[in-house]
Amino acid sequence: VTAPRSGAEAGLVTLAEVRAAARRIRGSAVRTPLLPAPWWPTPLWLKPESLQPTGAFKIRGAVNALAVLDPDVRARGVVTHSSGNHAQALARAARDAGVPAVVVMPDSTPVGKVEATRALRAEVHLVPVAERLARAEQLGAERGMVLVPPFDSRHVIAGQGTVGLEIVEDLPHVGTVVVPVSGAGLLSGVAVAVRALAPAARIVGVEPELAGDLAEGFALGRRVEWAPDRTARTVADGLRVCAVSELTWAHVAALVDDVVTVSEDAIRSAMRDLVMRARLVVEPSGAVALAALASGVISAGPGPAVAVVSGGNVDPALLRDVLGPL
Amino acid sequence: VTAPRSGAEAGLVTLAEVRAAARRIRGSAVRTPLLPAPWWPTPLWLKPESLQPTGAFKIRGAVNALAVLDPDVRARGVVTHSSGNHAQALARAARDAGVPAVVVMPDSTPVGKVEATRALRAEVHLVPVAERLARAEQLGAERGMVLVPPFDSRHVIAGQGTVGLEIVEDLPHVGTVVVPVSGAGLLSGVAVAVRALAPAARIVGVEPELAGDLAEGFALGRRVEWAPDRTARTVADGLRVCAVSELTWAHVAALVDDVVTVSEDAIRSAMRDLVMRARLVVEPSGAVALAALASGVISAGPGPAVAVVSGGNVDPALLRDVLGPL
Repeated sequence: VTAPRSGAEAGLVTLAEVRAAARRIRGSAVRTPLLPAPWWPTPLWLKPESLQPTGAFKIRGAVNALAVLDPDVRARGVVTHSSGNHAQALARAARDAGVPAVVVMPDSTPVGKVEATRALRAEVHLVPVAERLARAEQLGAERGMVLVPPFDSRHVIAGQGTVGLEIVEDLPHVGTVVVPVSGAGLLSGVAVAVRALAPAARIVGVEPELAGDLAEGFALGRRVEWAPDRTARTVADGLRVCAVSELTWAHVAALVDDVVTVSEDAIRSAMRDLVMRARLVVEPSGAVALAALASGVISAGPGPAVAVVSGGNVDPALLRDVLGPL
Repeated sequence: VTAPRSGAEAGLVTLAEVRAAARRIRGSAVRTPLLPAPWWPTPLWLKPESLQPTGAFKIRGAVNALAVLDPDVRARGVVTHSSGNHAQALARAARDAGVPAVVVMPDSTPVGKVEATRALRAEVHLVPVAERLARAEQLGAERGMVLVPPFDSRHVIAGQGTVGLEIVEDLPHVGTVVVPVSGAGLLSGVAVAVRALAPAARIVGVEPELAGDLAEGFALGRRVEWAPDRTARTVADGLRVCAVSELTWAHVAALVDDVVTVSEDAIRSAMRDLVMRARLVVEPSGAVALAALASGVISAGPGPAVAVVSGGNVDPALLRDVLGPL
């Protein structure tokens, strides 16, 4: 069973859809505050999505995607393919809704992520990486379960867009919003809300240089795809998606001002700043927005900037490594 | 110049004073959310005061204490004696108010804390530890500056009490509120708000075993004082105050249900949980409330518990140490 297909042909996600998502996720996602960064030389606020249950913004899209389903459909459960934060978010959202979740993961996934997803009572299937999507679709068909993809869904995008809604609620005169990019679900949703409510604000996506498919495509004016072994090199394991979807590309092309890239060193340095100065535990993916400001690829001003800190699921060994040697 | 003395003889801080403080600190302190802790076996929420500017709840009391001053008095500036989070909070509050701040610190203070306080444009005086209060009073008298003590002030207590106000706003049916204790300014203020608005809630203070002066006094029914070389042994450098004041003792005796202690191992273990599971960077002092729940000295339920995570100013070497070996 496939959810009603709502691709680019159905038009961009609307502000009304984001507002509806905000009502649906209340009580399931944390209403994160904007944190001032007085240690930064220009006006900067952080949006700490690392503080969400399951440690990333993904819970917003997952809860919204489940909430919009017809109750009879939802009762049969949901399936997805993800090795990362979306898997745990969907597992948690399904558990809280009292419905089953099936997660297809590559057999190369670190055991800790598999265990964390199982701890949320999801049924995990490990398959060769190339078979992920096919297996997820097969399981969905066999069991009558809806597939909730990590970003290629307008309900997921609308859920992630609540991040942008909250930013503008808290800082109506925001000048620049800086957002990590993987499949661009977060960037798309944030862009819908910010473009509608703060039309003059700059909206900028950030990728690691080593996974810069969207930045390359943005410069070329068309969607491009990178080879998986190419994006696998970045420390930012949450941002290794090799291509955005047609749906997220349409949002980026229509609503986003720029997409930039940052070096691995800049990512590590921003992680350290976020830990020691903002007292936030962040994963590498969660640090790229600050890294872009720190490395000067995005200019400061006019007006205050917001850097979205998208997630905090970091391996303790990496965290120790980033903190030292001292 | 000394601010109007408002000791125990003037009565306990009132809910109205806490509400007034909440209005005064708006925009200066972060309205921190309650974070669910789904990884905890019983219903638990965290109040992450580590996310405040200067990394601790102290900004609340400092801003309130400055705001209540007569403008002519405030313009002359403020003085305090502190080596810890109160020093930086008062320095920041004074800078934001455009008035001078003088901070007297022991000459044994780690250079990083001195530098951080100077970076906030405070004038720092380093003196032998025993001379701190006398020097602060002398400087205040010479310059006509009001002394804003770390906890022995009803305006400071009222400011810290806004933590309790927000807890009850967000979780009206809270069952237990667990609060780190040093001079008991935070515990006193939280107790005022919680006792008034959620009368059935348990209010519990937590100290390190190695700095358990209030726990000992609570059991004896009278204020006791420990020797500084005794409390200096705990890793929780923010909780080494050797005695509460008459004013905070009056609040604790009247409003608090229990004061318990935790081991050094429990503090380190709770720090690790807060970093890896809640994605919060915490200092040892900020972890004692969770440590008390984890070590079973406070029973779970009835109703949900809130652990106040009071601060996040941790030395990176200690943070690395707590995270490993892996």
